Amino acid sequence: MCQLLGMNCNTPTDIVFSFTGFATRAGRTGEHVDGWGIAFFEGAGVRHFVDHEPALVSPVADLIRRYPIKSKNVIAHIRKATVGSVALENCHPFIRELWGQYWVFAHNGDLRDYHPRLGGRYRPVGGTDSERAFCWILDHLAQRYDTHPGAHAIADVLAELAPAIAAHGTFNFMLSDGVALYAHCSTRLHYLVRQHPFATASLSDDEVSVDFSQVTTQDDRVAVIVTEPLTANETWNGFKPGELMMFVDGAPALVRQVGGRA
Amino acid sequence: MCQLLGMNCNTPTDIVFSFTGFATRAGRTGEHVDGWGIAFFEGAGVRHFVDHEPALVSPVADLIRRYPIKSKNVIAHIRKATVGSVALENCHPFIRELWGQYWVFAHNGDLRDYHPRLGGRYRPVGGTDSERAFCWILDHLAQRYDTHPGAHAIADVLAELAPAIAAHGTFNFMLSDGVALYAHCSTRLHYLVRQHPFATASLSDDEVSVDFSQVTTQDDRVAVIVTEPLTANETWNGFKPGELMMFVDGAPALVRQVGGRA
Repeated sequence: MCQLLGMNCNTPTDIVFSFTGFATRAGRTGEHVDGWGIAFFEGAGVRHFVDHEPALVSPVADLIRRYPIKSKNVIAHIRKATVGSVALENCHPFIRELWGQYWVFAHNGDLRDYHPRLGGRYRPVGGTDSERAFCWILDHLAQRYDTHPGAHAIADVLAELAPAIAAHGTFNFMLSDGVALYAHCSTRLHYLVRQHPFATASLSDDEVSVDFSQVTTQDDRVAVIVTEPLTANETWNGFKPGELMMFVDGAPALVRQVGGRA
Repeated sequence: MCQLLGMNCNTPTDIVFSFTGFATRAGRTGEHVDGWGIAFFEGAGVRHFVDHEPALVSPVADLIRRYPIKSKNVIAHIRKATVGSVALENCHPFIRELWGQYWVFAHNGDLRDYHPRLGGRYRPVGGTDSERAFCWILDHLAQRYDTHPGAHAIADVLAELAPAIAAHGTFNFMLSDGVALYAHCSTRLHYLVRQHPFATASLSDDEVSVDFSQVTTQDDRVAVIVTEPLTANETWNGFKPGELMMFVDGAPALVRQVGGRA
C-alpha cells in the first residue's frame, strides 16, 4: 500500500515540515520504498518531482526537504509497488493538461480487474491501475465540459465516478487543478486545518518540531490531508469511508458521502 | 532569445558536463536569466524540472549539476523572456502525453502574431508562442494517427508543419518522445557526436574538463545538440537554416531541408 499527502492553502506555503515526516515513512518508519513523487502548483505552472529511489535516500527528496518551495496546492505520494513495476512512469503523482490547466492526481489502494474503456484522449504511459483511473476521470470531464465548469461541478462528476472505481477495490485519491484539492476516502485518510492561533507541531516520524506561530501571519490557513496523521500533538479528523471532500483556500469547502464503507 | 540543449544517446548517459556549461550562460556568460528547465526521459517516464530562478543560482539546477541522472533523451532550455511573463508555466521544456507516451518540447526564437487555431485537445497553460506551437503540432499528430506511426512518419509531419510555424519568425526547436530527438533550425543550432575513441572535452563557459574515455564504453554514442557550441576543443557541426534533423541512438538518422533561410 502507498501513502498520500496533500496540502491546500490560502497563501503559498512550504511543505518542508510535513514532507520531512512523510518521507521518513519511505524506508525508516514505513515500507514505502518503491518510489515517490510530489507536485507543487505555482501559479498555473507545476513543479513535478518523481524518483524511483526511496524518498528517504533520494537526492531529489533531499532537495525538497531543504528547498522551501511555496505552493497553494501540493500532492505527494510514497509508493509500495503492488500493481505496476518499480519504474519512473509508475510513480505518482500523475499530471495531465485539461482545459488549459494542469491536473495532478495520486492514488492509494489497489483496484482489481480495473480496465476501463478509455476514450483515447488520455492514455496511461505506465502500467498502474491508478493512472488508468486518472485517465478515465479526465476523459469524463473532457467529454462533459468544453471549459472548466467550476469546482462544485467537478466535485459532482467525482462524486458520480468515484464509487464506480472504488467498486474495484480501494480508491483513496487526491486530485487538484491548482485551485481546489479533492480528496476521496475508501479506507484511510485524515486532515487538519492549521490557522490562527498557530501552535507548535511535532512530527510523529521524526524528531522535528515547528512553531507555526513564528512562520505564519494571522490570515494564513493551511489544510493538510494525509493517509496517517503526521503529528502526535494535533487533532486529526478522520474521513469516513466513502467520503469526498473538496478543500479551497485551506479549508473544507464541501463534504459529501458518495459511497458506502469499502 | 533563449538557448536550447539536447542529448540523444544509445545508452543512458548523464548530462552533468554539458548542463554545467549550458547553465553558466544563465547569468554569468549569458543573459538567459528568466527561468530554465530540463526534461530527462527514463524508460517511459520523464523527470521534468523547471524553475523561474536563473539556472546559475537555482537550487534545482544545482541538484542537476550534482546528481548524474542517466537518460537516453534530454532536452534543456534557458530562457530570456520575450513573449510571456517570467512564470513557471512559461518555462520550457513543455510536456504532454500523446498515444500513451510523453512528448517533450522546447523552442528558441520569437513567433510574431502566432495564434494558430487549436483543436482543443491540447491547450496552452501559459502565455508563450512556444507552447502554442507545441499544442498545434500535437493536435496535428493526434488528428492524423491513432497510434505512434514511427519516427520517420513523425519527421514527415514535422517537415510539413515547421515551415508554416517558422513563417511567423524564428523557430529553432527540439522535440522528443523518448526514442528519437527531432531538432529544427531556423537560425542557429549545432551538434556533435561523441563516440569511440573518446577524448577530453573542455567547456567554453567554465573551467571544467572531462576525459570521456574514462567514463564511457567502446560502444557508447552520444549526440549533443545545442544553440551555441559548448566546448572549444571539439568540432561542432552547424545546422543549415531550414534543416530538420532526427537523432536516434546517438547519431543523425535523418537530415532534411524543410525551409528556406529564415
